Amino acid sequence: MKAQSSYLHVAARMIFLASLATLSAAAVNNLGVRDDLHFSVEARGSNRDGSLPIYKNPSASIEGRVNDLLPRMTVQEKVAQLIQGDIEGWMNLTDPLDNTLTYNHTGLEQMMEYKAGAIWAGYLAPWDKIVYGITIGQQYLMENTSLGIPAMIQSEGLHGFADNGTIWPSPIGLAASFNAPLLQEAASTIATEAEGLGYSQLFAPVLDLSRELRWGRVEENFGEDPFLTSQMGRAYVTGVQSGRRRNVSDTAIARVAATCKHFTAFGSPQGGLNIAPVCGGERELRTYYLKPFNYACMDALSIMTAYTSYDGVPCVANKHLLTDILRNEWGYQYFVTTDAGSIDLLITRHGICPTRECAAKLTLENGLSGEMGGGTYTYLTLPDQIAIGAVDISYVDETVKAILRTKFALGLFENPYPYPDYASTMRTQATRDLLHQMEREAIVLLENNNNILPLSTNISSIALIGPQSNRVTFGDYVFFNASKNGITPLQGFTEFLANTSVNINFAEGCKLWSNDESGFPEAVAITKGSDVAIVMVGTWSLDQTLLWTPGTNVTTGEHVDLSDLSLVGAQFPLVQAIQATGTPTLVVFVSGKPVTNPWIQENVDAVIQQFYPGELGGLAIAEIIFGAVNPSGRLPVSFPRSIATAPAFYNYLKGGRPIDPGAIYPNGSLLFGHQYVLDTPVPTWGFGRGLSYTRFNYTDLQLSGSTIGTNENFSVTATVHNCGSRGGKEVVQVYMTDRFSSVVTPNKELIGFTKVDIPAGQSQTVSIPVMSSQLAVWSLSNQWVVEPGNFTIFVGTSEEVYLNATLTVQ
Amino acid sequence: MKAQSSYLHVAARMIFLASLATLSAAAVNNLGVRDDLHFSVEARGSNRDGSLPIYKNPSASIEGRVNDLLPRMTVQEKVAQLIQGDIEGWMNLTDPLDNTLTYNHTGLEQMMEYKAGAIWAGYLAPWDKIVYGITIGQQYLMENTSLGIPAMIQSEGLHGFADNGTIWPSPIGLAASFNAPLLQEAASTIATEAEGLGYSQLFAPVLDLSRELRWGRVEENFGEDPFLTSQMGRAYVTGVQSGRRRNVSDTAIARVAATCKHFTAFGSPQGGLNIAPVCGGERELRTYYLKPFNYACMDALSIMTAYTSYDGVPCVANKHLLTDILRNEWGYQYFVTTDAGSIDLLITRHGICPTRECAAKLTLENGLSGEMGGGTYTYLTLPDQIAIGAVDISYVDETVKAILRTKFALGLFENPYPYPDYASTMRTQATRDLLHQMEREAIVLLENNNNILPLSTNISSIALIGPQSNRVTFGDYVFFNASKNGITPLQGFTEFLANTSVNINFAEGCKLWSNDESGFPEAVAITKGSDVAIVMVGTWSLDQTLLWTPGTNVTTGEHVDLSDLSLVGAQFPLVQAIQATGTPTLVVFVSGKPVTNPWIQENVDAVIQQFYPGELGGLAIAEIIFGAVNPSGRLPVSFPRSIATAPAFYNYLKGGRPIDPGAIYPNGSLLFGHQYVLDTPVPTWGFGRGLSYTRFNYTDLQLSGSTIGTNENFSVTATVHNCGSRGGKEVVQVYMTDRFSSVVTPNKELIGFTKVDIPAGQSQTVSIPVMSSQLAVWSLSNQWVVEPGNFTIFVGTSEEVYLNATLTVQ
Repeated sequence: MKAQSSYLHVAARMIFLASLATLSAAAVNNLGVRDDLHFSVEARGSNRDGSLPIYKNPSASIEGRVNDLLPRMTVQEKVAQLIQGDIEGWMNLTDPLDNTLTYNHTGLEQMMEYKAGAIWAGYLAPWDKIVYGITIGQQYLMENTSLGIPAMIQSEGLHGFADNGTIWPSPIGLAASFNAPLLQEAASTIATEAEGLGYSQLFAPVLDLSRELRWGRVEENFGEDPFLTSQMGRAYVTGVQSGRRRNVSDTAIARVAATCKHFTAFGSPQGGLNIAPVCGGERELRTYYLKPFNYACMDALSIMTAYTSYDGVPCVANKHLLTDILRNEWGYQYFVTTDAGSIDLLITRHGICPTRECAAKLTLENGLSGEMGGGTYTYLTLPDQIAIGAVDISYVDETVKAILRTKFALGLFENPYPYPDYASTMRTQATRDLLHQMEREAIVLLENNNNILPLSTNISSIALIGPQSNRVTFGDYVFFNASKNGITPLQGFTEFLANTSVNINFAEGCKLWSNDESGFPEAVAITKGSDVAIVMVGTWSLDQTLLWTPGTNVTTGEHVDLSDLSLVGAQFPLVQAIQATGTPTLVVFVSGKPVTNPWIQENVDAVIQQFYPGELGGLAIAEIIFGAVNPSGRLPVSFPRSIATAPAFYNYLKGGRPIDPGAIYPNGSLLFGHQYVLDTPVPTWGFGRGLSYTRFNYTDLQLSGSTIGTNENFSVTATVHNCGSRGGKEVVQVYMTDRFSSVVTPNKELIGFTKVDIPAGQSQTVSIPVMSSQLAVWSLSNQWVVEPGNFTIFVGTSEEVYLNATLTVQ
Repeated sequence: MKAQSSYLHVAARMIFLASLATLSAAAVNNLGVRDDLHFSVEARGSNRDGSLPIYKNPSASIEGRVNDLLPRMTVQEKVAQLIQGDIEGWMNLTDPLDNTLTYNHTGLEQMMEYKAGAIWAGYLAPWDKIVYGITIGQQYLMENTSLGIPAMIQSEGLHGFADNGTIWPSPIGLAASFNAPLLQEAASTIATEAEGLGYSQLFAPVLDLSRELRWGRVEENFGEDPFLTSQMGRAYVTGVQSGRRRNVSDTAIARVAATCKHFTAFGSPQGGLNIAPVCGGERELRTYYLKPFNYACMDALSIMTAYTSYDGVPCVANKHLLTDILRNEWGYQYFVTTDAGSIDLLITRHGICPTRECAAKLTLENGLSGEMGGGTYTYLTLPDQIAIGAVDISYVDETVKAILRTKFALGLFENPYPYPDYASTMRTQATRDLLHQMEREAIVLLENNNNILPLSTNISSIALIGPQSNRVTFGDYVFFNASKNGITPLQGFTEFLANTSVNINFAEGCKLWSNDESGFPEAVAITKGSDVAIVMVGTWSLDQTLLWTPGTNVTTGEHVDLSDLSLVGAQFPLVQAIQATGTPTLVVFVSGKPVTNPWIQENVDAVIQQFYPGELGGLAIAEIIFGAVNPSGRLPVSFPRSIATAPAFYNYLKGGRPIDPGAIYPNGSLLFGHQYVLDTPVPTWGFGRGLSYTRFNYTDLQLSGSTIGTNENFSVTATVHNCGSRGGKEVVQVYMTDRFSSVVTPNKELIGFTKVDIPAGQSQTVSIPVMSSQLAVWSLSNQWVVEPGNFTIFVGTSEEVYLNATLTVQ
């Protein structure tokens, strides 16, 4: 949650000026500079002997530069590093079309005095105005402050740089590609669009697990699985960070800071209610939630904390998570930031602190985190608290060191500025081509009865029906009007079929948000006159402006929590009406999370899942349906039959899913079972599922060794055969079950996957490496242990096992 | 779960004889008697000098007797104490009507050699046959074994002694009475019926919390709240145990052992699926699940472990729960037993142990628990394991001491036999009168629009409609045909209205288990001809025989898990059809758990909740509806609007229930909200709710001190006024909110309640004591701490606050 997207934002803005006034003169005047440094206050940015301070030496080590700079800083300067500023302090960004290049100097000075560590600049604005504002800000910091510490400049980049950058599928769709190398390339283009404009930090990726599907933000995650999330998360971080800004130090290690969020376990709030508490124990934390952060984020230059509490301790002030595990156990050295307004929740929601002073102290001392805006800026109380001894300066120092490390690692002290030729890096054709590939790979074919798909371009007509068929539905975390850059399915089919004789008969049928069925007769009529019906239905979200505007309607996105995952309004009756015509019917779910509807699974001819796509999703779906592209997406999340049968995730603990199903038959008769009485906990579609237009077969499963030591890595090799008449991509998935262990382990766990492209009739031998640490359990003595014993290694999906073998660990 | 009720039972029985054969000669022959005791094997039950062994001395201390007896025992005798035997070993109980008084001597000897600690005798059988069998068994042990150690004799008594005893409302209904003293009396009668027949242990109460409503066993719990469960649990334990068996030692402290189950956190399995893992952390464990056990069970002579795992550690072998907390931290000294077949689950479900040897060792050494039957009797491996040093005898000794303490505490060494006059204590009129009072107090009036209730006996007719109206629906844990002792509502109304001119027009309308609506026209017709309609619908369970019989249908009870809490089959359409007649309509839910149906709440004239009643439920509902009795029950569990909006419990952690509701209106139009998009997390009816035919007002809330120390108890006093024209009982409920604390605490917590009977127009001042420990939080340093600060003290229900005050802890 950030800035204009924040429901806390308006209130926060009002409190902003008031809170500045609370900063006492005493604190501001207490410089807190170490006496033994022997330089004058005025010359803190230079050495007495005229030599270059270490911190300004591009060749010095990052740690050396941090240690040189810190003692030069006043308490006020230190605290200012820990509070997020906002470019609106000196730029008027109210009108997204206004391009006046002016700024407010008083506002700039005031902002940089109190909030100068990172500057939020995630606004919809003309690029050159943003570039102007960032340049002004960095110039002021570099040239008009004693120490010349540049700011990080922050925006959103969850699935595309948010200010008119190229919009990619939502993360759940990116994950559906099961193509980590492709995602790394995609993330690289997102960073490139941000980098040129002068941004140095993007608030992505999200590494929460989709274990509670009612939660609004499922679309922001890479699905339910720790391993898939780890792999996609690392690909994203690597893509964003790899490289170096222009004209910076050799010691710089990244060009844009990725921000892993939300640390941690944020994705399972009780009842699916946004920012509600998460229940869980240490073993669940380690076995599921922490793994992606540990795997993907140790080189990420920033991590963002979660709004929630975990087992009764708010994540924002959680010493166990933020200090014991993240800083000490994992040795994480970089910038940790809170989410917008989340420190204030210690006062207003969690019931931990009665005052801002308490909230600031607890967060700083337990979490070593910087404070994001969106609240009352509790860290403004820190100078006074330090002055009276209520807060120990050592926590401030540690936290400042972390943000300085991130800045030095970005090379910002050498060049914090936008690039003059930034326009050449925005929305390039190369990026668009890459996006096109991702759009294709993200689509998941779930059902294809009698191989009705792909459709032939020799048919005479399709009926394109449903409220998703002439609409661009992006997920959340895009800016106002981003959808204008997108292609609707109707446009996509039109473009794809331009040189064919296939007629497109279009009828919306109904709106997404209404029970009005008055459009049904038209939809039914054109269906009857068509060879096949494609009905596009699903969920919807909105851009960050409309999403938070009272009176708009959405079914997914941040702060939008569903109780029921079935289709809203007239959509399901529309599907039934179209299917009842007898015309072969294909349903496409365009959604940000699983839609629950077993009837559709059982009654239509084919089902395709398109998680919220990017700008070219409307074209890719046409290409898939007509077979120009062979589908290769896989589900990153299991689809329960209804929310009442959730959770459906495949990696439940052993013994967790007894099955003795009942049923309610279409004729109304009832079959009584026990798990559940009239339903089943078995999902409609499970994790990893995804069909192809060709058929793959597996042979020759081999382990690098059938017996290994507890510290020994191994590999799983199999030969994949494309037995069909089309080339296609297959996601080779490797799972394991730890047969017996000292604690209860997941029923099945993904431990490796890769995507391979195999021509028709050909084979490929695939070898997938597995680290021994992937076999470890979080033991009764609270440590990771690889226990001797037998493991079953599967090649398959969560639903289907193609081959299996036994691995013995000695 | 036990014996004939167990799905593990058939398999277990088959394995039984086979497993006996695995006991090696070596182990059997290894007596393991301490050499330094200097008595011959034959004379282990007497002293060399002819004096009475301490353990046979009724005046000696229990601990002295235990310590005297233990070293006299062989390993085999010790292990036999730890394995549950079964009276079927020497009695043929196949035909519940057969009353032949014979036994199998070989079977008796074999049973007592290997499985003699406690004997399962929970069968449907003629009382004198049971008495005969128990007498034979105890006589053999007392007179034909070296040491003369009697067995505990076990049966079920969850809501009535199961073998043709008086059946009470299911525990959820008992809890709805909010009348702990009355429950204590009830439990006492249950124990009395068991005691006379020679039973010494009942498997009750259940202290699991109903935080996952899909779970089949919700009816067995005392609701969702730790405090209510604590109070009702302690009342039950006290009622069962208080007193002393006839002709026993003065050191005996109880006449029948209560068995608190299931230790612990069993009531929240993932997905509501029976015996699925429970997710949670240490703070959730302490704040919710452990409290009832700690409060109610420290004097209970037995505790039963849970089938589930908690955060990945099976409860049956959970050192933290069973040894660290229960034995060491709490100092619990008595018998802990596993549930039926649950040790085997370490092999078959939890994936912890590949062998029976492993399962036995882990359970014994971590849990110090005895093994119940229903599995493969893994403890039969212990003698061999001890012989080879694989299991430490000290764990066996500690566990044996615990069961011996329980037996000495029951006085069984003096008199383990049934009473000759047992018949005089069975199904007495006094018990029936007490039951009648409980039935009345357990009924909850939820809605009463325009005070339509109570009905006047001057009306000319009622339509009694619905599948619950001519049926006795007990909850689970009653034996075959128990319902024959019950009165149906139709019988109850008939009896109650016998001397009036009110006609009863009855139509079932539909079956519980069908969508068949062919009975609707008759039901509608008689409704149109009646002054008022009473529609009785709900869930249903069956007795322990039918519940586990393939092909029967139920919606609640052990191993019967619902995905959906709405009315099954044609029941809801029936309610709608009756309501549509325009005849004033009253709905009675007869159910074992919340039924979700907001439409009924919004559209009918009155709603009554009758949780599964006891034998007189059919009469009590008539008395309530016609006002012979003023309703005084309160909900022990919150009713969500649907399972999709669950959990609904009132005591969620702070910040856990953001509310921005949407709605689907009857006309099909949609109101879009965010929590949830088209619904609300606010329950239909909350914990503590229950209306009366009179009106109560509260004044003069006072705390014994508005400021107290951290170790200081306090009391909450208020004056309750009956402002109506009828006498009635009111449940005075006291809640607290800890405003700020070091960890996140529940939004609201019940900390006291009492039920008072106030005549019309009169007032009563009520004072409710609260212990300072009730204010404690489970701190970050993992201990209970009462933290200084302000607490809000409320008088009211979870939904309504009548008065509040601030308590300051210094």
